[in-house]
Amino acid sequence: MPYIHIVTALAVLQFIAFGYKVAAARGRYGVAAPATSGNPVFERHFRVQANTLEQLVALIPGLYLFSAYFNPLIGAGLGVLYLVGRELYAASYVKDPARRGPGFGLSFLPIAALLLGGLGGAIRRVLVA
Amino acid sequence: MPYIHIVTALAVLQFIAFGYKVAAARGRYGVAAPATSGNPVFERHFRVQANTLEQLVALIPGLYLFSAYFNPLIGAGLGVLYLVGRELYAASYVKDPARRGPGFGLSFLPIAALLLGGLGGAIRRVLVA
Amino acid sequence: MPYIHIVTALAVLQFIAFGYKVAAARGRYGVAAPATSGNPVFERHFRVQANTLEQLVALIPGLYLFSAYFNPLIGAGLGVLYLVGRELYAASYVKDPARRGPGFGLSFLPIAALLLGGLGGAIRRVLVA
Repeated sequence: MPYIHIVTALAVLQFIAFGYKVAAARGRYGVAAPATSGNPVFERHFRVQANTLEQLVALIPGLYLFSAYFNPLIGAGLGVLYLVGRELYAASYVKDPARRGPGFGLSFLPIAALLLGGLGGAIRRVLVA
Repeated sequence: MPYIHIVTALAVLQFIAFGYKVAAARGRYGVAAPATSGNPVFERHFRVQANTLEQLVALIPGLYLFSAYFNPLIGAGLGVLYLVGRELYAASYVKDPARRGPGFGLSFLPIAALLLGGLGGAIRRVLVA
Repeated sequence: MPYIHIVTALAVLQFIAFGYKVAAARGRYGVAAPATSGNPVFERHFRVQANTLEQLVALIPGLYLFSAYFNPLIGAGLGVLYLVGRELYAASYVKDPARRGPGFGLSFLPIAALLLGGLGGAIRRVLVA
């Protein structure tokens, strides 16, 4: 399980780094809390963080469900793909929101594989037991 | 535990499905990223997803805490109630935000039972040990 | 582990309490769903909840990773610091958003310690094994 733990910690730290960029963008573009709009570049950073929160909440259960029924090492490998996809997503979204698709896909597909694999493994366990 | 795992995966997949509806509503109602407002029906889909994220983050720890101290099968049953409540919440919110109450309650009450049950079980464990 | 479970349940219940304050502020300041802006005090409550969601999603994995490689009791103690920091954050943010820094720091530092401790423990496990 340490590989799954490492990926979990890195995914949360990546999310925190995106949050740090939102805080930095508040200062740079003069968007004082509690506002979350008013400058288009700030809003991109803000949406990168918000979307990553949504993905993170799906990734983490997926990592543990997949590892419980299949291979933790393959699970961790899918998690690394997610991490790379999120970096691509963040970088491309901030440049041009219309080009966020490939990075989104590269981070979403591993999540889908982890969750569907975990769900399938759990259902099989119920049926076989 | 496979029952708890199945409910976990279904709850995350339900949340992903709500996110898919937000993405579809972006296209249908012409709300380009990073905007999250501008069309009332889009905003309803967006709030359904955001509220479900908040509930999901409470549900998942609740499922595992409850199962650690009580019955995983009862925990999974409460999770199924949550899933049904969320479907009702989403459908009624999109029709009329003022009528989102019953679906919210049906998904929130199982969460409260899971968390308070888990908390009570953990406190009892500390006191008895 | 019951101490970690108690802190987990309390952190989720604290988040739910912040959500309840958002719902109450909707009524008090006349911000009908799906709107999330329009009144500055409502927006402060809304941002307290949203920021706490972001922190909660980092705290919970941190608690379990730290406890897996170090001391669950120290992990739970760091979690109590987080709870206190969040109360300070919420109270100061609602009074004046510009003064949210100390409460944010007091809740963020324990999260950083939990995650970095857990990450370090997992990496050491991989290298030593």
